[in-house]
Amino acid sequence: MTFDQWTRQVLDRVESALDHYLPAADVLPAPLHDAMRYAVMGGGKRVRPLLCHAAGELTNATPEALDAAACALEMIHVYSLVHDDMPCMDDDDMRRGKPTVHVKYDEPTALLVGDALQSQAFITLTSDVLSAERQASLVRELALASGSIGMAGGQAIDLASVGHSLTREQLETMHRLKTGALLRASVRMGALAGETPSAQSLAALDKYAAAVGLAFQVVDDILDVTADSATLGKTAGKDAKDGKPTYVSIIGLDASRALAQQLRADAHAALEPFGARAQRLAELADLVVNRVS
Amino acid sequence: MTFDQWTRQVLDRVESALDHYLPAADVLPAPLHDAMRYAVMGGGKRVRPLLCHAAGELTNATPEALDAAACALEMIHVYSLVHDDMPCMDDDDMRRGKPTVHVKYDEPTALLVGDALQSQAFITLTSDVLSAERQASLVRELALASGSIGMAGGQAIDLASVGHSLTREQLETMHRLKTGALLRASVRMGALAGETPSAQSLAALDKYAAAVGLAFQVVDDILDVTADSATLGKTAGKDAKDGKPTYVSIIGLDASRALAQQLRADAHAALEPFGARAQRLAELADLVVNRVS
Repeated sequence: MTFDQWTRQVLDRVESALDHYLPAADVLPAPLHDAMRYAVMGGGKRVRPLLCHAAGELTNATPEALDAAACALEMIHVYSLVHDDMPCMDDDDMRRGKPTVHVKYDEPTALLVGDALQSQAFITLTSDVLSAERQASLVRELALASGSIGMAGGQAIDLASVGHSLTREQLETMHRLKTGALLRASVRMGALAGETPSAQSLAALDKYAAAVGLAFQVVDDILDVTADSATLGKTAGKDAKDGKPTYVSIIGLDASRALAQQLRADAHAALEPFGARAQRLAELADLVVNRVS
Repeated sequence: MTFDQWTRQVLDRVESALDHYLPAADVLPAPLHDAMRYAVMGGGKRVRPLLCHAAGELTNATPEALDAAACALEMIHVYSLVHDDMPCMDDDDMRRGKPTVHVKYDEPTALLVGDALQSQAFITLTSDVLSAERQASLVRELALASGSIGMAGGQAIDLASVGHSLTREQLETMHRLKTGALLRASVRMGALAGETPSAQSLAALDKYAAAVGLAFQVVDDILDVTADSATLGKTAGKDAKDGKPTYVSIIGLDASRALAQQLRADAHAALEPFGARAQRLAELADLVVNRVS
């Protein structure tokens, strides 16, 4: 199977699974469920679900277990986008090529959609396609990656940094929490959904995920200044306009591009112990670095 | 032990446990952790922790297991208060006798405090004072009670109801989700933290919790018109001012008082199968109905 075929297959599975794990649009309260589906369905690159499925191949996780983990990850990611886009945060009107939730509906709905998607992620992880032990360990991974020492904490640091100059080290800390923690959880949860991985395997996957997570952010910063809004599906040039520190603003465009390639190489190196079984993870590192949107 | 002594003992335990399960105020990002602690610590009636501990006595749950469940419940409750008080929702300045989080800090902080407290609840539930099976079942109970078919869904119905007249039945549906679901989860999670309860026991506890949950809201509506802000620790008369339908506005003050007493009797009746072991739950039903704040 080519990488493109594999990707398409996983994306099809995940789309069906999201449809399954989200309450139907006619379940009460219908307007909230309609808005949750608007936020989640039919958009986004689904990088976290892809990482999760690719990592699960290393531990022979069942596709159904991986679907549940992948959907939970995507729900957390989407909730964070919906809240980040709100007027009191980044105040953005466009996301994934569509009006943001608070624009399409209203602010209270956006707040509740985010809140309810976070709960839905944990409902999804406790479905019986996973054993109780795996449910418990995946819930803990996801909650730690989402909370104050993970994604939400990174967001807090990000907000506090607007208009301030950060060192490259401080910028890295912020991204390690804001986007890195959930990307790392995507890889770990995929592996943990199958046969229990060794401590060495998890350490190697953490190294891979750290490189890919940082690369993801460096490329985001590059695209913010080189791509247009239509290609990105969100407002381009926004970070510069908002006075947010980025890799491009701190080390420049050329050094950022070189850094992204270095991180890609680091990611590949981390996968060496797994040999050919880590092919999809290696290809995903390439995808993250070479993406144009 | 008198009820007062028991209550004090549980509240002391829960306060220490909250301090333990919340990240320390000097852990990075410190400003977010400081605000999370401001929202959670030293305030509120802790009704959900009390219900959880009382129900746990029926199934010989360990105090440590009940502390974890109680803290998770309180974190979810507090997150909902923080988000509900935000300007785009109820826009309230005062809560538990202190400035609300968005007033004391700012709106983005309030949003992130709520988001991170929800994650922290699931981190807390997956601590090793509970077996993996219990972690998984408690996470599912809490996530279902918090999400779109529970608390967040009730909040959505509440917002949609402002300025509209609701039937008593519609009002009850709203409250069953908005506050009832988490109160029910408090009782169920306490019981599920111990020896597996029978289906009949859980059904009896559900009946008890439904009556107590509704009574809680009826009394809230009564206090909104009869108590002052200083006693309540939040703005009195707010529901009437905001045009929100309440029991008092729909059936009147006297009928609301009679309904609260009827629900108290229903709660006691539901506990009959448990005999004296349900003493604390019975006393808590009295507390909920007779409270003055």
